[in-house]
Formats: sequence, structure tokens, C-alpha cells
Amino acid sequence: MIESPQAPEAAAPSAVLGPNQYGKAETRVVKVTRDGHVHHLKDLSVSVALSGAMDAVHLSGSNATVLTTDATKNTVFAFAKEHGIASAEQFAIHLARHFVTSQPSIHRARIRVEEYTWERIGAPGQRVGVPGERIGAPGERSHSFVRAGRETRTAQITYDGSTWQAITGLKDLVVLNTTDSEFRGYAKDPYTTLPETSDRILATQVNARWRYGWTDDREPAPDWDDAYTRTREHLLDAFAGTYSHSLQQTLYAMGSRVIEQRPETVEIRLSLPNKHHFLVDLAPFGLKNDNEVYYAADRPYGLIEATVLRPGTEPAIPTDLTLL
Amino acid sequence: MIESPQAPEAAAPSAVLGPNQYGKAETRVVKVTRDGHVHHLKDLSVSVALSGAMDAVHLSGSNATVLTTDATKNTVFAFAKEHGIASAEQFAIHLARHFVTSQPSIHRARIRVEEYTWERIGAPGQRVGVPGERIGAPGERSHSFVRAGRETRTAQITYDGSTWQAITGLKDLVVLNTTDSEFRGYAKDPYTTLPETSDRILATQVNARWRYGWTDDREPAPDWDDAYTRTREHLLDAFAGTYSHSLQQTLYAMGSRVIEQRPETVEIRLSLPNKHHFLVDLAPFGLKNDNEVYYAADRPYGLIEATVLRPGTEPAIPTDLTLL
Amino acid sequence: MIESPQAPEAAAPSAVLGPNQYGKAETRVVKVTRDGHVHHLKDLSVSVALSGAMDAVHLSGSNATVLTTDATKNTVFAFAKEHGIASAEQFAIHLARHFVTSQPSIHRARIRVEEYTWERIGAPGQRVGVPGERIGAPGERSHSFVRAGRETRTAQITYDGSTWQAITGLKDLVVLNTTDSEFRGYAKDPYTTLPETSDRILATQVNARWRYGWTDDREPAPDWDDAYTRTREHLLDAFAGTYSHSLQQTLYAMGSRVIEQRPETVEIRLSLPNKHHFLVDLAPFGLKNDNEVYYAADRPYGLIEATVLRPGTEPAIPTDLTLL
Amino acid sequence: MIESPQAPEAAAPSAVLGPNQYGKAETRVVKVTRDGHVHHLKDLSVSVALSGAMDAVHLSGSNATVLTTDATKNTVFAFAKEHGIASAEQFAIHLARHFVTSQPSIHRARIRVEEYTWERIGAPGQRVGVPGERIGAPGERSHSFVRAGRETRTAQITYDGSTWQAITGLKDLVVLNTTDSEFRGYAKDPYTTLPETSDRILATQVNARWRYGWTDDREPAPDWDDAYTRTREHLLDAFAGTYSHSLQQTLYAMGSRVIEQRPETVEIRLSLPNKHHFLVDLAPFGLKNDNEVYYAADRPYGLIEATVLRPGTEPAIPTDLTLL
Repeated sequence: MIESPQAPEAAAPSAVLGPNQYGKAETRVVKVTRDGHVHHLKDLSVSVALSGAMDAVHLSGSNATVLTTDATKNTVFAFAKEHGIASAEQFAIHLARHFVTSQPSIHRARIRVEEYTWERIGAPGQRVGVPGERIGAPGERSHSFVRAGRETRTAQITYDGSTWQAITGLKDLVVLNTTDSEFRGYAKDPYTTLPETSDRILATQVNARWRYGWTDDREPAPDWDDAYTRTREHLLDAFAGTYSHSLQQTLYAMGSRVIEQRPETVEIRLSLPNKHHFLVDLAPFGLKNDNEVYYAADRPYGLIEATVLRPGTEPAIPTDLTLL
Repeated sequence: MIESPQAPEAAAPSAVLGPNQYGKAETRVVKVTRDGHVHHLKDLSVSVALSGAMDAVHLSGSNATVLTTDATKNTVFAFAKEHGIASAEQFAIHLARHFVTSQPSIHRARIRVEEYTWERIGAPGQRVGVPGERIGAPGERSHSFVRAGRETRTAQITYDGSTWQAITGLKDLVVLNTTDSEFRGYAKDPYTTLPETSDRILATQVNARWRYGWTDDREPAPDWDDAYTRTREHLLDAFAGTYSHSLQQTLYAMGSRVIEQRPETVEIRLSLPNKHHFLVDLAPFGLKNDNEVYYAADRPYGLIEATVLRPGTEPAIPTDLTLL
Repeated sequence: MIESPQAPEAAAPSAVLGPNQYGKAETRVVKVTRDGHVHHLKDLSVSVALSGAMDAVHLSGSNATVLTTDATKNTVFAFAKEHGIASAEQFAIHLARHFVTSQPSIHRARIRVEEYTWERIGAPGQRVGVPGERIGAPGERSHSFVRAGRETRTAQITYDGSTWQAITGLKDLVVLNTTDSEFRGYAKDPYTTLPETSDRILATQVNARWRYGWTDDREPAPDWDDAYTRTREHLLDAFAGTYSHSLQQTLYAMGSRVIEQRPETVEIRLSLPNKHHFLVDLAPFGLKNDNEVYYAADRPYGLIEATVLRPGTEPAIPTDLTLL
Repeated sequence: MIESPQAPEAAAPSAVLGPNQYGKAETRVVKVTRDGHVHHLKDLSVSVALSGAMDAVHLSGSNATVLTTDATKNTVFAFAKEHGIASAEQFAIHLARHFVTSQPSIHRARIRVEEYTWERIGAPGQRVGVPGERIGAPGERSHSFVRAGRETRTAQITYDGSTWQAITGLKDLVVLNTTDSEFRGYAKDPYTTLPETSDRILATQVNARWRYGWTDDREPAPDWDDAYTRTREHLLDAFAGTYSHSLQQTLYAMGSRVIEQRPETVEIRLSLPNKHHFLVDLAPFGLKNDNEVYYAADRPYGLIEATVLRPGTEPAIPTDLTLL
């Protein structure tokens, strides 16, 4: 036999590792703080995603640089005790800084948080959640809570050892205008059958993410809770106060309101499903439907998505907030 | 004897039809009522179930006695216009009476309703859903709503042509006490490892159905909305105000409170999952966890179910509110 | 001292405890059995519900008769080791017998099981789940599984110390006939607008529960796995082989087939949502839709429910398999 | 004359529109093709997202360039008739090309498809879905189907008028190895408590997206169905055949297998939740648990995500397949 084929000294790899991250997702931590007889409650779901020098674990199965996802979960619980939970964002900042600064192999940490809101159950005789009545003043029932069940607040903090990215958001905030919405003057193609309307219900489930300009530890961070509350207020206010020619226009009104009114925010991404409410045809039953009776459909639905930016800002929020 | 076997004149059937019902489920009807510039909104999911002389349709495929489920859906929409939606129960009564009295083949109608709550979006500058502030006073924004997202109100009306059964309820009302809950002194068997505790979080998701004593058209019906609001209040109040030795005891406190305080109600069924919050062991990290940091588990969960009755009442609410 | 008012010796109670049960729900147990290199897998979700002498725990908070739900969970895990999991039903029988016979306060146990099916991942080069090819012969890959994801098998075993009730079932088995289904000749009322059809898609999601005649320990129990497999087969076969005049008729064909063919079964309850597939009107686009293009709707849906019985049998399966 | 301050001819805007898209999501189209007595079934959920010259609709409410989402839905149905559904990808290509080439305002179309698999219900007496038996040979029951319920196939086609991007994928393919998985030698920090293990269950729910090298109409496109089937096979085969030191390593084995074996594919993104199966401690009950009895936990879970690339390829698949 002639020469055996030479072993390749450095064979070109047939596949290479690209972007990767790992961590523990959806650790549900509940923190009780006792202020005398008045208890306070924070309820978070925390997801940790770490990346860095992780080639060996993927390529050779060596785990030497891998902090276990179990340890990242433990850290969430321990930090709830050590640092408390001032806000979702502040808590995530503690975690992200810890992972990046304490483990040489970890170069970047992204912490996502969902926060669930609880309201106090009022004192006896006081009704809860009834518009126009006082809600949940701390009294004797200072340790009893009812989950609000409204939208979920979200936060995402990313840190690479030098620069911060802070994105706050909300999801599943369902809103509806019974009037002041029309839709007409649109393009017609051979597949267009929709009649124009000058008065329709406009309803959507607001999914929003907004990015703060803050990136540097040496600069003061936003007041996270106040920024959230006021941004949510602006979104509701712009939705309610806009005479709508399309959901696109309403979306832009909501996004630009936030950019204009909240100086700490440089970018906002909105994903708004058009929750169709179709006027029911009651004519077969001898009835007139004067914009009174609607059928609320599930699927399909229009889906309107856009980013609104402070001038001069490059978009950084992923454009797919709602995956199939 | 030679004769061929006689053809059976009436062969014994090998299978027989038992209880049956049919109808259209989950018709989502939204009703807008315009009171000048102030709009009102009702948002229901209505499920119709009819039964009666339906043997032929099952056995022979003859549809002569079948009112289509599509027609029952149409009736829901038409009745929203014809009768309005004063309350979930009143609307269901209109429907049930109609089906039983207008179709000879239909002997019994059961109407189930889920109702979703919307709150008004406040006038500009007014915050929504913030404890301590005025909510949703009808102003210029009298056509804009945000979905409350709290518990869902349910109603079930059954009518057989002479007698009514009215069951109201709520589901997914999530409540939590941070203290005043213990669990000890329980039976121990060889599989018991749970340590006793004198201070734990008690959390549950209240699923309740209560039956009214009203059964006769000639008697005045309950004030449906007031009965709902006050019963919900009593459930919250009893949950918050009970020092708990077990979730069973808390359940009974909730149920008996309603029976004692609400004369229109004769039976209540509660299904309460014990949403476990486990104290996290922080000792490995050199930290003391003084009832501060909890892990909220998903599954498995305790499930506590019981009926509470006005003395002399036979239970009539199905005992499985929560199916696997 | 003036005497305090006399305590009532036996005041009539204002509320009484009715039917009640408790236990741990949805304990997910996975059992691996190693037969040399060939591994076998059982994957169950087990829910325990116990009842008996439980008045004191509800009324006074005394837990002396309460076996903890945590202990019932531990028993599930321990029994998986001690008894193995021959079938969902057999495993539930072990559990039910244990609780009723070992704890004097427990008079009745109801065990519910969901079972998830796993198939073997085939040897290299062999395709998995491809019709017409051999699937999952135990080879070198005898420890690798893929979850089937089809319907879920259910079992419910109830024991009161003397009599057994065994109900097996399945849920979420989605089936569809593209033809051999019509719907006409139905009753018309003023709200009927549905056009009659002589060729439609018939699709449903089969939810079935069937009760076995077996009640006595001294009689041989059914062959649980064989009974399940063959009953499922009959349901599919009857669905596919019935020319349908209505979903009611198809339901009865499915139920009576099981009663007629499976001697161990005395009752079956079927809950069949009519998963509507509407023919799309393509005429506006100059196209003819000859039963080719359908829109699959989510809600509302028809819901057809009935029990089929062996003659002489009283119905015992709850009639609400699908709750709102 | 004193000059009034000059009106800004072009005042700097305070907010600007960024990336945006819109369309109808989740149109569920079912296509029946009749080949004599043998019927074929395609069941898709189609989501259309269009972008282009849409500034005016957002900024001024002019809808002149907006093709309605309703028309995009109609197009889905009409194209199912006009072009048939050869595969999810081919169908999406027809749609994307249509929108971009027929509407001047639309510069880019992204079509997402989910495909649900149906298997034939076998002839009478033939069992369905039983390993080792022949499945669903077209016979008399050639119009009856049962939904497979396994993983969902996904496809995403993007077209900008000149270049195509084709990403196929699958989600919710749940796999499990009962052995040949260890996890040890990892980094330890003060929050690490996890014991090392040399034999554990490894289970995950495979979410994968892979991108084809094909971008040009003039080049032959992949054989979409064959590419899907074989890629799925490689993923299963690599999962089952890899002795695992970590889920990261298993992920890379799966991804690199596809890149190496499927020449049409240049990039694959995998998102693998670590579905933890914890060995239950049976020692308190005097039992030894020799890797037999496991508790399958829901949350939290490890989440391992990575891209594997053909050398020289830039990653283009979004890195967040699984959103919070």
C-alpha cells in the first residue's frame, strides 16, 4: 500500500459555534418585607441568561467554565435576602453585575423579570377594587393581598462589564375604545372586500418595551417605579385620547407620547394585536344594530408593530416581541 | 321444532342513550350602550346547553327536533339587542326561558356565562388603577376602557319550564396572607415528612360557585349585581380575617360567612388550590431566612374542596369545579 | 356580679359542612425500569382526593385526622418504587386501597391519573413516526424517547373500602373527516340562518370517559392496557366509519360501538366539541370553492355531550366533562 | 419692523418612526385535495407581516398605501385554491412574492407558517399509532384523519423583491434519555449547591430554526419536505446518540450534525429548556432509589440556547426563539 493519506494538521471545521447563552429561566421569587404589622410583597419571575467563554462546554463537554444554572437560581433567592427587591430593574442590576464581575468566564449577563402586582385586601367593610372607593389603605389587614391580574410588568437588564442596557415593558394590557375609530381610504386590490367604516370598536392588547437612555453606572439611573407608572399612564392616555384613523396611527400616538413626555426613554417598541370586534348582522331577525352588538373574535387578528425613537437614536429593541 | 327462529319483534337494544345535551359554547358577545357621551360596556362569553326530546337525532340521524347550535348563537346576539344585558344572570334567564318555551322538543336549558370586567380609563392626568386615587370618573374619556383582568364572574342558569336554578360564581381570584397561618398537629403516617409550621404564607386561587334559594318566577329574584359584589367582598374579608390552622378551616370560614351573611344564598362550593410558597433554605449561603424569601411552586399543589350549606339544604352544585 | 347571658346549650348552626375532599393534585412521577440495556418509561400526573371524618378540621381547625397532602405526594413516589407502575389504573388502585385501609379517618379515596405516552427514538438511520416504516425497535437506542403528544390517557379510581369504581378515558384526541358528513332537515326558528349542507368537514376533539363493570376485588379486573387500546380503536373506527347526519349521531355511533364491543364497559360519556371548518367564500375573487378551502374557527363551537349505557345500567359518570 | 421669531420651517421632530410591519396573524387555512376517493389534508396557520412605505399611515392617519390585513387574509384563502399548498415554504413563497410585487408600497413581506400534522385513521381492524403496525394505508377510510399532536413544523419566508430568506423549524418536540447523561466538573461559586451526577435523565423540548443557503429565485430551492424530515431525523438521532456531559454539548452535537449532514442548511438556532427530572429521595421511607423514580418539575428550568453555523456564515436567525 502506498502512503496513507496524511492526517490533516488543521482540518477546517465543518461547523462553528455562533451566539449562545444559558441560565435558569422563570425562577419565581416572592419577598415579604415586614414593616411592623404592615407587610409588603414583591412577586417576580426571574430569568438569567449568561454568555462568555463557553466554547469548550459546547465543543468538548468540559464544564470548567460553567456556573450551573442551579447556582444562578440560588443567587436569585440569596440576593432577594441580601439586597432586597427595590424594583424589578434594580434587582436585575444587582444580579447582572454579580455574574459578570464574579465569574471570569461570564462576559455578559441578561436578566429578565416579570413582576406580578398585588393589592391589599381592604379592612372589613371596605370593598376592594370598586371604582370610586378607597382601596387597600393599610389597616388591620396589613398582611392580606389580592393579585391585581392586570398587565404584567417586564424588565430586561443587560450588562457586559462596562455598559448597561435597560428595557422596561408591560404586556397584556387590554384596552378598548367604543367609538372615535374609523378605517377607510385604504388601498384596494383584487382581494380587498372589507367595507370602509367610520365608527368601529378599536381594541388591542398592549405589548410594549421601552429602552432608557441610561447606560453608565456613573450616571444616575431612572426612578424605575415612577418611570413605569407614568409611561403606562401615557400609553393609556394616548390610546384613549386619540381619534383613530388606523391602529398604526394610534400606535404611533402612543409611542411618540412616551418619547415626548418621558425624557429618560429613547426608544419604544409596541406590538398591538387588533382585537377585532365585528358588528353582528341582526337584519335577518328584523333588528337594527346601531353599533351596539359585537362579536369579539379570537383569530385571525391584525398585528401592528412599530418602533418609535428619539431622533438620533438607533433601534436596539428586538422587533419580534410576539413570536408565532 | 323446525320453525326458523322468529325475528325479534323488539330485540333488546345492546346500548341505550343516557343523559345528553348540546348547544353553542363560548359565544363572545360585547354590548355597547350609549348614554349620551357616556358609553357602557358588557363583555360576556355565553354557552348554551339544551336537552329534551333528542333520541331520534342520536339514534337515527333525524334532525327534525334539533334547533341548530348556530341558531342558539344567533339568539344570544339578537337578545343582547332585544333585551339588553342587565346582568349575566338576567341575560341567561331570558335565553333559558326562550329556548324552553319556544321549542317543544327542548325541555331544559342551561346557560353558562363568563363575564369580563372593564374599568374606565380616566381623564387625562388621572392615573388608572392606582390605589388611593379616584378611578374612572366619567368625563371626556367616557368611551375608553381597560380590562380589569381580575377574577372572572360566572353565572349558570338552568330552567326546565317550571323551576329555576341560579348559580353564580367567580374563578381565578388569587389571594395571599403573608402570616397568621400555621399548619401542625396533623396525622403522621410512614410517608409523612412535612415539618410543622407556625407561620407560613397561605395563598390560593378562589374558585367559588354559590346557589341562590330563588327557584320560582313568581318570587322576586336576587339583585344579581349586588349579590355578586357583596359575596365577593365576604369571601375576601373572611380569607383575610381568619387566623388559619389549615386551608380547610379557611375554606369553611369563607363559605359559612357567605351562608350566614347573604340570605339569598343556600349553598356554596369552594375549590381552593393551595398555592404553596416554600421558604427557601439560605443557610448554605450564610444567610438567615426569617420568613422573607419564598419560592412559589407550580405543581403539585394541595387541592381543598368543600360545600357549605344553609341547614336543611340538599347539595346541588357539582362537586368537581376543577377537572384534571 | 350580674350574670352574663347564658351561653346557648345547642344553638342551631347557621351553616353546615357538605361534601368535601382534599389531597395533592398533579404530582408528576416518572418511573424508569431497566431491563438490561432496554429501558422502559412511565410518565404520570397523579391527583389524590381523600374524604372521610374531616368535620373537625373544617369547623375547629383541629388537624388530628388530616393526613397531609404532602404525605399523599410522598406516597405516590414511594409506591412507584414499591409497586411499580403496571398501568395507570393498577397504580391508582394501590394508592386508593392504601389510603382507605391505613387511615381510619379516610373513608373514600379518589385517584386521578393522566398518562403521557412516549415512543422510542429509532436506531440511527431509522426514521421516527413516519407512516409505513418500522418504529422504535429496541436497539442500541433503547434509552431514548420522544413524547407522542397525541391524546392523553386518563384514569379515575374510587374506593370506599368495599366497592371500586374504575373510569378510564382519553382527552384531546382530534379527528376529522373530510366528507361523508351532512347536516340538514333540522328545526327552523326565527333565529335560524344556517344553510343546510350535504357535504361538510366534521371535526372534533374527543373527550371520553368510560366506566367498567368491575367493582369487586374478588372479581378479575379488566386488562387495563388492552381495554384502553381497543376502546380507543373502536372510537376512531366508529368516527371514521360513520356516515354522519349530525355530530349527535356520530357520538352515539362511537359510544354504542364501545358498549357493544367491549364487554367490560357499562357506560361511556362523550363530550365532543364541533370544531367548525367553514367553507370560505372565494366568489369575490372569481374562484370556485368546491369543498377545498376551509377556515378552521376557534370559538364559538358546538358542544355535543351524551352518555351511552349498557341496558339496565344507571349513569354514574359526571355529565360535565368539559367545564367552562 | 421688528422681526417676529422665525417660524421653524422644518422643526426638528421630537420622535421618529423606526422599523415597523403589519399584517394578519394566525389565519387558519385547511386545504382538502381529492385524489379520487383518497383525500389529502393540509392544515396551516399563516401570519403575514408587511413593511414598506408606511410612514403616512403612522404619522398622519392616511391609509392610502395600506393594503388591509383583511385582504391579506383573503389572499391566504384564495392562494390555497389558486396555487394549492405543496409545502408550507412553497405556499409562503407564493404569498411573499405576491405582496411585494403587486403593491408598490410594500417593500418586504415576511410570511410565517405553522403546520399541523394529520395521520390517516386506518381501515377497520387496523390499529392507529401503534408501534410496529402498519399505519394509515389509504383504503376505504381515505377521508379520515387523526391529528398527530407531535411537534409543530414552522416556516418563515422573507422577501424584499430580490433576495429570499428561508427559515424552517420545529417546536415542542419533547425528547428524553434515561441515561448516558452526566453533569460534573463545573465551576463552583459560593451559591453552588448542586451535587455532581454521573447518571441523570436528560430531557428537553426542542425548539429549532434552521436557515437555508438558498436566496436566489434563479437557483433551485431545497426540497422543503424532504429537508424537514431529514433534519428532524438528524436532530433526534444526535440527541439519542450523544453521551452527554451537558445540555450545551448535546445542543452542539444536534446543531453540528445538521450543518454537517444537510448541505442546504447554513445556520441553525436551538433553544433547549432543560426539563429537569429530579431523583426523589426515598430514604425517609426506607427505600433505595436506584435511578428509578423521578419528579418532573415545571419551573424553573435551565434554558440553553446557541447557534451553529456553516463556516464563513454570518448569523441571521434572531437569538430569542423563546420569549419570556
